[in-house]
Amino acid sequence: MSEVKQKAQLAKQASVVLASLSTEQKNEALLKMADHLVHRQQDIIAANQEDLLRGEENGLSRSLLDRLSLNETRIAAMADGLRQVAELQDPVGDELEQFDRPNGLFIKKIRVPIGVVGMIYEARPNVTVDAAGLCLKTGNAVVLRGGSSALHSNQKIVEVLHEALETSAIPKDALQVIEDPNRASVDEMLKLNGLLDVVIPRGGAGLIQTVVNNATVPVIETGAGICHTYIDEEAQADMASSIAFNAKVQRPSVCNAMETLLVHEQFAAQHLATFAEKLKQAQVVVKGDEKAKALVPWMEDAVEEDWCTEYNDYVLSVKVVSSLEEAISHIQTYGTMHSECIVTENADNAAKFMQQIDAAAVYHNASTRFTDGFEFGFGAEIGISTQKLHARGPMGLPALTSTKYCVYGDGQIKE
Amino acid sequence: MSEVKQKAQLAKQASVVLASLSTEQKNEALLKMADHLVHRQQDIIAANQEDLLRGEENGLSRSLLDRLSLNETRIAAMADGLRQVAELQDPVGDELEQFDRPNGLFIKKIRVPIGVVGMIYEARPNVTVDAAGLCLKTGNAVVLRGGSSALHSNQKIVEVLHEALETSAIPKDALQVIEDPNRASVDEMLKLNGLLDVVIPRGGAGLIQTVVNNATVPVIETGAGICHTYIDEEAQADMASSIAFNAKVQRPSVCNAMETLLVHEQFAAQHLATFAEKLKQAQVVVKGDEKAKALVPWMEDAVEEDWCTEYNDYVLSVKVVSSLEEAISHIQTYGTMHSECIVTENADNAAKFMQQIDAAAVYHNASTRFTDGFEFGFGAEIGISTQKLHARGPMGLPALTSTKYCVYGDGQIKE
Repeated sequence: MSEVKQKAQLAKQASVVLASLSTEQKNEALLKMADHLVHRQQDIIAANQEDLLRGEENGLSRSLLDRLSLNETRIAAMADGLRQVAELQDPVGDELEQFDRPNGLFIKKIRVPIGVVGMIYEARPNVTVDAAGLCLKTGNAVVLRGGSSALHSNQKIVEVLHEALETSAIPKDALQVIEDPNRASVDEMLKLNGLLDVVIPRGGAGLIQTVVNNATVPVIETGAGICHTYIDEEAQADMASSIAFNAKVQRPSVCNAMETLLVHEQFAAQHLATFAEKLKQAQVVVKGDEKAKALVPWMEDAVEEDWCTEYNDYVLSVKVVSSLEEAISHIQTYGTMHSECIVTENADNAAKFMQQIDAAAVYHNASTRFTDGFEFGFGAEIGISTQKLHARGPMGLPALTSTKYCVYGDGQIKE
Repeated sequence: MSEVKQKAQLAKQASVVLASLSTEQKNEALLKMADHLVHRQQDIIAANQEDLLRGEENGLSRSLLDRLSLNETRIAAMADGLRQVAELQDPVGDELEQFDRPNGLFIKKIRVPIGVVGMIYEARPNVTVDAAGLCLKTGNAVVLRGGSSALHSNQKIVEVLHEALETSAIPKDALQVIEDPNRASVDEMLKLNGLLDVVIPRGGAGLIQTVVNNATVPVIETGAGICHTYIDEEAQADMASSIAFNAKVQRPSVCNAMETLLVHEQFAAQHLATFAEKLKQAQVVVKGDEKAKALVPWMEDAVEEDWCTEYNDYVLSVKVVSSLEEAISHIQTYGTMHSECIVTENADNAAKFMQQIDAAAVYHNASTRFTDGFEFGFGAEIGISTQKLHARGPMGLPALTSTKYCVYGDGQIKE
């Protein structure tokens, strides 16, 4: 039997035990995991060194090596993350609905774990700990398949977490790491219907597309964000500039950063030149459509492809529009429906935008950078869903649960 | 451009308009659809005759021809179905959560339509009307791909519904029927990411497997039910017999009917012979394991394959177990986690079963036949989900919605 199938079977068996544990038992295990990570940090750092050495040999970029790298501070942060998850409310067992039927049946809808979660991700080893903590807290077994460049780190982390689980009520088989670095192991996971209940990809657009295109297991798609900020005719100039600047520059590499700025022509005539200058000074490459370039000639040309591009970088495309409707239509055409913002003092325009833009998060007068589980107050985040089924937007613990109906009768039969 | 892509694009455009309509506008359209179906019933019946004639030529079975067949009574029932959907509460716009953040952001989570729903189904033309009504009520455009044997009926029904929509606020493009009878049109729908937001298959196991195995669009899996009834040592004999008989015999062809009966050996010793006789008289083929046959020698042999089979027929497999744990373990191994029942007067055993069996619906002392949207009081049903994501069990109107976060600020930027 393949490694993937064998480990998924063990995870599934363990998930049955895990699903019946109390919140206290799960929290105790998380705290032990946290302590043991710190206790064994030197071994984890040593394993990480092997990955870093091999990464350098293989010519990984500096930014990738940085993401891969672990030190005492980062391990402490991972451990703290587990302790924070332990403090969050456990959604499992929550009664979501209850109702009586005329025939005397009493029906309750309660939250239950999903079962076995498959995580497929790239270099960062902290995802290993994050995902383990979030899945175990919600009573799910988890099969982790991290990037091959972090293999030694992930193996050691899971070895350490297993040691902690052995002193807890959670069966250690509930946490599995796939060690086969070949692409075939990912493909196999994607088709493990009956053993995996969901696959969650975390990483770049390529990884996510691979998962969506090949999975027969249900997927929660995360990630791609071509986010817009629309500055309306009636925007307050300082606020608009501050929000748009923040959305682009505060951290351009993330999915909730702005990629395209839409500016009403009245506002643009007065303020675009100043704002573009501010971006330029922050090292942002600014590309404009014809109308934008008529106001700010030094902009590069924005072409069709720019409207469809998630730069994830210090690059911005700018389009000047004649109306709110044109802005909405542009977003409906090119947006990935992740996070979209209108800056305006006009309540009607704001209401129209909030109603007609069908994105995971729609903002009035605030930066799109707030779309994440911590900023929304969920205390944790397994990812940001960009699909419309199951979960949409930042996913906290309830996104890792399913439901079941418990039906209580006293002999009812169907007529 | 292909028919499928063209119609899906029209549906997507229409979905934007549809999403902004009021409940009253949608209900008015549903009532017009109902009236017009009845008004044009002779044309629908004539089109249906063509399908029936072709079906007879192609040697369709009597039961398939019966499912395909439309008459005034059935059309009246379809129209009544639409009127009932019009009376249901519209979930779109419901505020599910709202919270303030310390930085002053105010966040609301509201229900929105999913967008464009693809329905892939088999012969019964009433699904065309049902699905149209449920999707439009929840603000979703819908692309219907019914079985080729019902093509003329479905074309005519949609033509009639389009006439009704033309006098309503719902754009008629929100309702599309695929006329290409080739399998390729199904395959194309399954990969229409970006145009279809979800695909829901309704039909036999083969259809559902095809959809699950080939779709890159998110799927809500419906259907397969290998349902068990477990009669505990401490069951009340009359109730147990009545519930198990109902679960098997009342309508064996449906997914919530019982396929395997598990009986505790103490109960079996006293009552299995009598109950098996009752089944035999109802024309049920009864298959037993060794222990069951030791008590009732005339039973056929139940083999491994029987535990994995959804008969959907007057056939039952029976296994005698030594304990509640053995029953639970059997269900965990062979069940499809659709509907599972325990009959017992022992509260501890009931609680253990309800907790450990992770099915869409778990019953204590009631027939599994109640797992459907009408019996649960949802007033309608788009299907019964057997997956754990998005919706599980009977799906009422809320299962056809997604959510979005509306975030209100006064200039907040991320630090």
